[in-house]
Amino acid sequence: MNTAEKTSSTGTRDRIVRATSRLLQRQGYEGTGIKQISREAEATLGSVYHFFPGGKQELAAEAIRHGDEEFAAVLRAGLATSQDPAEAIAACAALLARELRASDWQDGCPVITTALETVGRAPVIEEAVAEAFAHWRAIVAEHLRAGGIAAEEAAGLAGTVIDTLEGAELSAQVARSEEPLRLAGRHLARLLSTYA
Amino acid sequence: MNTAEKTSSTGTRDRIVRATSRLLQRQGYEGTGIKQISREAEATLGSVYHFFPGGKQELAAEAIRHGDEEFAAVLRAGLATSQDPAEAIAACAALLARELRASDWQDGCPVITTALETVGRAPVIEEAVAEAFAHWRAIVAEHLRAGGIAAEEAAGLAGTVIDTLEGAELSAQVARSEEPLRLAGRHLARLLSTYA
Repeated sequence: MNTAEKTSSTGTRDRIVRATSRLLQRQGYEGTGIKQISREAEATLGSVYHFFPGGKQELAAEAIRHGDEEFAAVLRAGLATSQDPAEAIAACAALLARELRASDWQDGCPVITTALETVGRAPVIEEAVAEAFAHWRAIVAEHLRAGGIAAEEAAGLAGTVIDTLEGAELSAQVARSEEPLRLAGRHLARLLSTYA
Repeated sequence: MNTAEKTSSTGTRDRIVRATSRLLQRQGYEGTGIKQISREAEATLGSVYHFFPGGKQELAAEAIRHGDEEFAAVLRAGLATSQDPAEAIAACAALLARELRASDWQDGCPVITTALETVGRAPVIEEAVAEAFAHWRAIVAEHLRAGGIAAEEAAGLAGTVIDTLEGAELSAQVARSEEPLRLAGRHLARLLSTYA
């Protein structure tokens, strides 16, 4: 395979993963079919199965790894705004709220709908979901420790931070309002400031 | 209709709603079909459409109202254990964790999967979901106010309490572990105690 072919092949695979990630985020796993993915990605069904011989489960797991990175990038951008854990987490919440509004409340967490639909039924997806959550918690925990929170508290707090942001994002989608995320940011900041 | 017929008719309708609620909770809206509902409820397809002429959307909205009451009952049971808001919310988290484990991590929030799958696409479902969230927030807010938290803080805090419990329940399902809910209970108690 020459360089041009390799680039084009990477491009197709990447388009398929991105299209799957967006569709899973907006309509979930059960409501998304391989044919729709192939249409949205402007790829043939043959090339979808070429890159993902394991079919929809394999594709969903890869899309979740893509969503993992997307959400991690938002977290890192929010955390980079302040060394103070309380301020930084409030910034993450505000950033999630702005992005959610910008997508007209469509693009919430890229992982959770598929995770819930497949609980106990698709090990390859569950593994990708567990890795995503662990990754996000690790990013937050590192920032909390760097901001002066004891390591033995930081890991657990990072879990609650992620879970609260997840829950508030769902609530914001349902209410079509930034308010739940703003409140979550304020309350998480208050909680974190008690550990400073 | 005599009393026996009325009772039997109420029984069938109730079985259909309960079966739908359980299926939505375990596999989501898109993965659940009317035929499966009719089988699980031991009701004919004809009687499903007799009670729910609006089909799957109407049935899902009614199932969400049923799930609303189920989750409200768990909240009330947890809150009844203590007048102290911090202790009471930690008890709610512990109760959710125990029930989730007892269902082998299957029966999480009876509302959220369907809510996420249908965002922006099913007004009758969205209305039932919004009412459920408002109901749960009201139950928690009332307890916080009764426990001495100022009314202007209680409403917002109740929102964050519900969102955090939701997020931690998702996390607990994914991790097949009570730990996320235990942590959420501990951290919410700490947050609430700063308002006492």
